[in-house]
Amino acid sequence: MSFVCVYDETNAQHAPPVEFYAATGWEKHVEKPIRTEKILTSLKATFGDRLALVAPRSEHYGKEHLLAVHDAAYLEWLEVAWSNYAEFRKLRFNDDKTVEHGLIPDVFTFGPRHQLPKCKSLHAGHYCFDTYTPIMPATYDAAVRCGAHVALTGADLLNEQNNARTAGEAAPTVYALCRPPGHHAGADYYGGYCYLNNAAIAVAHLKTLGHARISILDIDYHHGNGTQDIFFHDPAVQYVSIHGDPDAEFPYYSGYASEVGEHNQALNLPLPLFSGEVPYQEALKKAVKAISAFGPTILVVSLGVDTQLNDPMGTFKLVAPMYKAVGETVRAELVNLPTLVIQEGGYRLETMGDCVAQFMAAFWQ
Amino acid sequence: MSFVCVYDETNAQHAPPVEFYAATGWEKHVEKPIRTEKILTSLKATFGDRLALVAPRSEHYGKEHLLAVHDAAYLEWLEVAWSNYAEFRKLRFNDDKTVEHGLIPDVFTFGPRHQLPKCKSLHAGHYCFDTYTPIMPATYDAAVRCGAHVALTGADLLNEQNNARTAGEAAPTVYALCRPPGHHAGADYYGGYCYLNNAAIAVAHLKTLGHARISILDIDYHHGNGTQDIFFHDPAVQYVSIHGDPDAEFPYYSGYASEVGEHNQALNLPLPLFSGEVPYQEALKKAVKAISAFGPTILVVSLGVDTQLNDPMGTFKLVAPMYKAVGETVRAELVNLPTLVIQEGGYRLETMGDCVAQFMAAFWQ
Repeated sequence: MSFVCVYDETNAQHAPPVEFYAATGWEKHVEKPIRTEKILTSLKATFGDRLALVAPRSEHYGKEHLLAVHDAAYLEWLEVAWSNYAEFRKLRFNDDKTVEHGLIPDVFTFGPRHQLPKCKSLHAGHYCFDTYTPIMPATYDAAVRCGAHVALTGADLLNEQNNARTAGEAAPTVYALCRPPGHHAGADYYGGYCYLNNAAIAVAHLKTLGHARISILDIDYHHGNGTQDIFFHDPAVQYVSIHGDPDAEFPYYSGYASEVGEHNQALNLPLPLFSGEVPYQEALKKAVKAISAFGPTILVVSLGVDTQLNDPMGTFKLVAPMYKAVGETVRAELVNLPTLVIQEGGYRLETMGDCVAQFMAAFWQ
Repeated sequence: MSFVCVYDETNAQHAPPVEFYAATGWEKHVEKPIRTEKILTSLKATFGDRLALVAPRSEHYGKEHLLAVHDAAYLEWLEVAWSNYAEFRKLRFNDDKTVEHGLIPDVFTFGPRHQLPKCKSLHAGHYCFDTYTPIMPATYDAAVRCGAHVALTGADLLNEQNNARTAGEAAPTVYALCRPPGHHAGADYYGGYCYLNNAAIAVAHLKTLGHARISILDIDYHHGNGTQDIFFHDPAVQYVSIHGDPDAEFPYYSGYASEVGEHNQALNLPLPLFSGEVPYQEALKKAVKAISAFGPTILVVSLGVDTQLNDPMGTFKLVAPMYKAVGETVRAELVNLPTLVIQEGGYRLETMGDCVAQFMAAFWQ
């Protein structure tokens, strides 16, 4: 059976050059287009002829697929945010300067009441929660086509493969190589390099395809605050996450063990920073047991490989060969569950492709 | 009668070197200690022997004077925010680096639910609303002593002078040369170079001294969002502000004409950016008529001179001699109202002292 990887190379047009860190200042942006190239190179080396690269079926999807997850006003704004920057410059500075590094907010909403100004680019301070996530000219199109549509196509392909399989055949797995990533984007907020929540959009679509119970396993190094928020009140969607302790790790303000969802359907397993393989595998076993107990008909994995040793954004200490063991732990407990793997973070260019390929290899043994 | 100016020179210990602008990056901070020196120099030149410099009566004031306006958890946090940065570095980066430019947030709270992390320095993303307002080692002490206590002392001196005056004597005016400024700080948020709301703290104290109706005239170039928020539900405190249109001007998310307070006791008069003296005086006449109609027993003026031509933070076109006319317009309508003038913004070093002195001169003719 071929290894289906959904991917769109135009994601490279979204390439923020810098992000702002308050501790140091401008830094080269780590969420680069080359990340997808590194992953593809490793997948080709691992899967060879079995690798089937598939383009997103963008013609099948409309605004309604995004609106199933995101707020209408946010989507409308995201589409025009960049192009409205010129109006702000004209009104405030009476010039036509632009900013090559894209739109980043530096004033955020405050207090119990606030209104939104006429200058739409300023709404970034309402919708965005950090200074790491610039909106570039190509950002909206990339987020829709190379993020959301890649995830939706992955969901449809997985569902088709699952419907077509014969009794006794192993449950299928499909890999959606999304970029930009998605799990930090909420219904009406963005940040953490994420603009649209690809995993949540795929889950909402899978629900319309008849899946009554869906589990999300988020193994990015960072808590997927957006995904958790989107499904916080939804008893049909389980959110399970293993991540660096938010007491000192982005996104700081959620991902605590006390957050269990309105229907006790969320499970957060924060780990101490600098954790290695042993506590990671222990947490992962808890995670997959909880998923097994929830009894989903389909699994969505938010795969971040920023859990790897020396990732510039993480502190965990997994090395590439461990990702096969991680995949095997998932597979061992959830052996016949159709699985959509969605790419989230992972930034150590030298080894990140290998981490992804090792993880995926566990599903094609 | 002497011109009383309350002032504490230790404000100079709060000196953030830089602020972050998303359009350009680090910029030298405009809210500098030298601002108070420029004002004092001009006051000495204008008032000569009549100038009475008075130190804040810090020994008279306690936490309760701040708690009358600010949230207890915010105050506790502000006091320790800087000293907790080391804990964050240790936990997240396992080093003991510090940041010479102070604590600035780069990740802000998001979504319908959030918790606060154990690392207290990270709470800046909960309490702060911009990247312009660093917390330095000396910030808390300066905000309390050189901001809040200066304003409280001004309020007490004004009240004493007012109680001591004989029939027929002109109503007194006292000037509180506060630094850092205050009007952007809310009950539980800070930003716009402001940490504690000096004007609001003075107003709350004046209420305890028996003033049943108090008006605040905010003529800083920027809308005083914090002051408005603090008194939004208070029928005894009128907030009247003339400022650059928030549709394209900081703080963007409030200051609209539609914001009238719960008891119709707020009046916002946003002016188009790049306005000059004529529309300014028209708005000011509306403002003082509204104050006259409210019938306060005392007036607090939040005086910003960033309304001046070529102020680095403003677009208005007032020049120094016009500030005497501004003061006279206030005085003409509100002739016998005891007045506490509290310094807010104003950043053009060459002329800002003269603007303040001209304004104050209108009260000592």
